[in-house]
Amino acid sequence: MLSDRVRMDAYYNSIFRNKSHFLDKVVLDVGTGSGILAIWSAQAGAKKVYAVEATKMTDHARELVRANNLEGIVEVIEGSIEDVILPEKVDVIISEWMGYFLLRESMFDSVICARDRWLKPTGVMYPSHARMWLAPIRSGLGDHKMSDYEGSMDDWQYFVKNTKNHYGVDMSILTKPFSEEQKKYYLQTSLWNNLHPNQVIGTPAVVKEIDCLTVTVEEILVVTANVSSSIIKEETRLCGFSGWFDVHFRGSKENPAEEEIELTTEPSEENGTHWGQQVFLIHPPTHVCSGDDLNINFAMSRSKENHRLMEVDLGCEVKQSSGKLLQSFKHKFFIE
Amino acid sequence: MLSDRVRMDAYYNSIFRNKSHFLDKVVLDVGTGSGILAIWSAQAGAKKVYAVEATKMTDHARELVRANNLEGIVEVIEGSIEDVILPEKVDVIISEWMGYFLLRESMFDSVICARDRWLKPTGVMYPSHARMWLAPIRSGLGDHKMSDYEGSMDDWQYFVKNTKNHYGVDMSILTKPFSEEQKKYYLQTSLWNNLHPNQVIGTPAVVKEIDCLTVTVEEILVVTANVSSSIIKEETRLCGFSGWFDVHFRGSKENPAEEEIELTTEPSEENGTHWGQQVFLIHPPTHVCSGDDLNINFAMSRSKENHRLMEVDLGCEVKQSSGKLLQSFKHKFFIE
Ligand SMILES: Nc1ncnc2c1ncn2[C@@H]1O[C@H](CSCC[C@H](N)C(=O)O)[C@@H](O)[C@H]1O
Ligand SMILES: Nc1ncnc2c1ncn2[C@@H]1O[C@H](CSCC[C@H](N)C(=O)O)[C@@H](O)[C@H]1O
Repeated sequence: MLSDRVRMDAYYNSIFRNKSHFLDKVVLDVGTGSGILAIWSAQAGAKKVYAVEATKMTDHARELVRANNLEGIVEVIEGSIEDVILPEKVDVIISEWMGYFLLRESMFDSVICARDRWLKPTGVMYPSHARMWLAPIRSGLGDHKMSDYEGSMDDWQYFVKNTKNHYGVDMSILTKPFSEEQKKYYLQTSLWNNLHPNQVIGTPAVVKEIDCLTVTVEEILVVTANVSSSIIKEETRLCGFSGWFDVHFRGSKENPAEEEIELTTEPSEENGTHWGQQVFLIHPPTHVCSGDDLNINFAMSRSKENHRLMEVDLGCEVKQSSGKLLQSFKHKFFIE
Repeated sequence: MLSDRVRMDAYYNSIFRNKSHFLDKVVLDVGTGSGILAIWSAQAGAKKVYAVEATKMTDHARELVRANNLEGIVEVIEGSIEDVILPEKVDVIISEWMGYFLLRESMFDSVICARDRWLKPTGVMYPSHARMWLAPIRSGLGDHKMSDYEGSMDDWQYFVKNTKNHYGVDMSILTKPFSEEQKKYYLQTSLWNNLHPNQVIGTPAVVKEIDCLTVTVEEILVVTANVSSSIIKEETRLCGFSGWFDVHFRGSKENPAEEEIELTTEPSEENGTHWGQQVFLIHPPTHVCSGDDLNINFAMSRSKENHRLMEVDLGCEVKQSSGKLLQSFKHKFFIE
């Protein structure tokens, strides 16, 4: 998303405020798309940039590189990073690999593969760190979704009656699978949203921290966390949870950034991103008060049908500050 | 679309008003989906129905067959019709294979394959005939699409300026490919619409007639026609063309239907279908009068990238009844 200003600024600043990481260095841009990160790397002084892209976007990237007089520096290579052979190891791997709630799309697997094959032992990752966040929220979306679901079931019932009366076929046996499919679609599929910060009703918790220099694919296949959150609004409805991420550009321990840059996709009035947040709704909402504590069990794994999509199990206990258990639930969600 | 009443009625009537075609016969339902056509065939007296479906919908079809006490008659088979081996040849092939503007999806190829492999020489096809229609129309959609396109190009220009000023990268070289992509999307992609009959401003013309019993795949790979249409509205704007189809259930020559049934997707106030019509818009619209004649050159072929999608070349000469040429144009469209 070239028009996501927050995203563009973060990458731009991470490069141009840390020019020493790029000056006379060899850089690999994993998934270069239009080529923008490769071009910035070259403008910041890189002596060579390998810009790898799996799709035909390479045509555009090549044109853009030429139009910006960088064809001596930036080499656009069409192919999957998993298959590409570079003539040398690189000092920097830069990539914009983040999907919804960080890991959707699973593109980070490809960046890890690139790192293990092509990054020098002294190399740095751009970004260098990533975190996944979870927080309780309030939202009117749940009521809408529930009434969409109910409307769809009403239509179905009407259809079943009609099919029996007009066409002599009894379809009622399919009511249960149909209802489950609709529930999955309307109630269990996470939603994209740019929340207002005041919709966050409890302290956000980190459910995963990733050091991009050392993490393995195995360590991100399943993300589990047991975290707590305290309600910070006087009286409100707990309508669900919101997940987002941030990444940091810190360089490495031996080679720290001159200026650390953060890219966050947290709820924000002014600085929303195209990633927004993922919203997991619970039905019905629960009444909660300031000081109530949530004990949250979070588990995210890849969908069996499509490893680029995710399944989330979210369990929660709501307790008063006295320790009294108010509510406990467990729901399954799908990040589609 | 089980909730498309026009579709359901046509298939239902084609079966139950032609019971002699089904009584004690062997039937093949190509792409049975929920199993509805197979169940009707059995209810009309078929002694055996093979219900073939490529997807997991077979689970539902099987349940439905059982719930309607037809497991002795209807055999649900999971697999592509191209791969399935039946133990015998069949008397009837029934299938609901029609896509937008008849041929989108290219599922008819599979029905032809089934026919050549499994239909007895005396067998009948349900439906037995199909036609594609084209007619000149007026529509306000073109103005909307044009302003969407212009808006998108304005955004792009702003983006290019901004990227140059803030991020030091000149993207203007991509203006041409971007504009072509946007043109394709907003102006050259056919639209789904259920038109009002009075939006049809000229006599509709048949661009293709298909006898489902004899047609070959080669004969539908490319559909070309040179047809004419007379404007029937006093004074109006020619905004584009609309394509739709009808199919007929007539049985075969040796074995004609007792009652011929028609399923049409033409513009209709009351009997719209989920297929609607495909609309091909021209920019800008042309002023036309009653009696003007259109000479239309139509060619539809399959998209190189995806043979289930279509490309359409539409050329048109607009002539006054005096013979004077008012306008002539040629446009390319995509049925996506
Ligand atoms: N395994 C892989 N090998 C090469 N390119 C990949 C890839 N997986 C994803 N990509 C590409 O990575 C890009 C991610 S989007 C980011 C584009 C660009 N770097 C920018 O910041 O604007 C997409 O263009 C996608 O096609
Ligand atoms: N080659 C093929 N072999 C088997 N099934 C196919 C097929 N091509 C398409 N289909 C199936 O054909 C169906 C067409 S939709 C029609 C469904 C059903 N007969 C009804 O009238 O309601 C889809 O379910 C699709 O999965």
